[in-house]
Amino acid sequence: MLNSVSPTSPSPVPARRVRLSQDDRRRQLLGIGLRMLVERPIQDLSVDAVAAEAGISRTLLFHYFPTKNDFHEAVVDAACRRILRNTSPDAEAAGPEAVGQFVTRYLEQVDRRRDFYLALVFGSSPVSFGLERVETLRATMARRVMAAGELPEDAFPVVHAWTAYVEDRALRWSALPHGTRPPLADEADQCQRALRALLAA
Amino acid sequence: MLNSVSPTSPSPVPARRVRLSQDDRRRQLLGIGLRMLVERPIQDLSVDAVAAEAGISRTLLFHYFPTKNDFHEAVVDAACRRILRNTSPDAEAAGPEAVGQFVTRYLEQVDRRRDFYLALVFGSSPVSFGLERVETLRATMARRVMAAGELPEDAFPVVHAWTAYVEDRALRWSALPHGTRPPLADEADQCQRALRALLAA
Repeated sequence: MLNSVSPTSPSPVPARRVRLSQDDRRRQLLGIGLRMLVERPIQDLSVDAVAAEAGISRTLLFHYFPTKNDFHEAVVDAACRRILRNTSPDAEAAGPEAVGQFVTRYLEQVDRRRDFYLALVFGSSPVSFGLERVETLRATMARRVMAAGELPEDAFPVVHAWTAYVEDRALRWSALPHGTRPPLADEADQCQRALRALLAA
Repeated sequence: MLNSVSPTSPSPVPARRVRLSQDDRRRQLLGIGLRMLVERPIQDLSVDAVAAEAGISRTLLFHYFPTKNDFHEAVVDAACRRILRNTSPDAEAAGPEAVGQFVTRYLEQVDRRRDFYLALVFGSSPVSFGLERVETLRATMARRVMAAGELPEDAFPVVHAWTAYVEDRALRWSALPHGTRPPLADEADQCQRALRALLAA
């Protein structure tokens, strides 16, 4: 039924439309876009499919995101925030416990969404991170580890580069079939030992 | 004068055309493409501009590279090979000397062509590396270091991830203005100490 809504006409108005505030509608559209980004090849993020799934017209979607590119950028920003949220240590954790939580959650995140992560970071699609978002991701993760370890400012280049080390390990580890790869806890432990070794070097 | 050659007509034939073998012509076109890739924003790699500079028609260029995409792919492959060639240690070097040469040349390469390197590795342009070439680059560099250090096979994940660590350091280091950043030799030394620390961790 939703698919019968004309993509260029704002009416008929589906029931859900009037119930959502502007913020909720925006969040809903980004949520649908994110899910599509995870489920399909990353370049296939169609504004029409998102509008149809939200039960709104293409015109109304363009009210929230003036161009297709604006929508793509907003979805990729949301993907970046989601990765950071999913890999954040608990608010009450500190020290090695917080670093361990971050590493474990990061490995789990890459393992769960490996193709998605690869397409975002190393993809040549217009819907990929690009350097600025990769830098946001690494710098935010490095700052968390700096805070958890109460590390001095001059450790930042080491911790930042360590996030790249962990990313590379995570991508190789998650490419191995289950059963042939080290357990998550061992891989996480390797990453934490690497950090300690790099800080001491 | 070369610019007056019609982009769709194979004649008039510039003098240089008849002198080049097929292989030489191919190399010439890739060389021009590479230079343009270095000098301009990476998405501006125009087949017409390359043909004009080679003094040949667009039609003849498409004889060597059937589509614009084929040409782009070939140029980006050539960029990948060039980075590997520029960062290769001397054939007669071995052990820590070879690792030191690789690290120093890699830092010099990124420093000399930082924007180019960034666009290739993290760019969202169709003319960027994508995961497979990034993997080729890292795996080839890691294999060189493995061979130089005569390291056991199970060190490969560590050395591979260390190349990502070195890349991140190189990008941050080369972003600092001269005068405010550590000398090349110190940065290279940091990278080598990081490798030893990671291998011992």
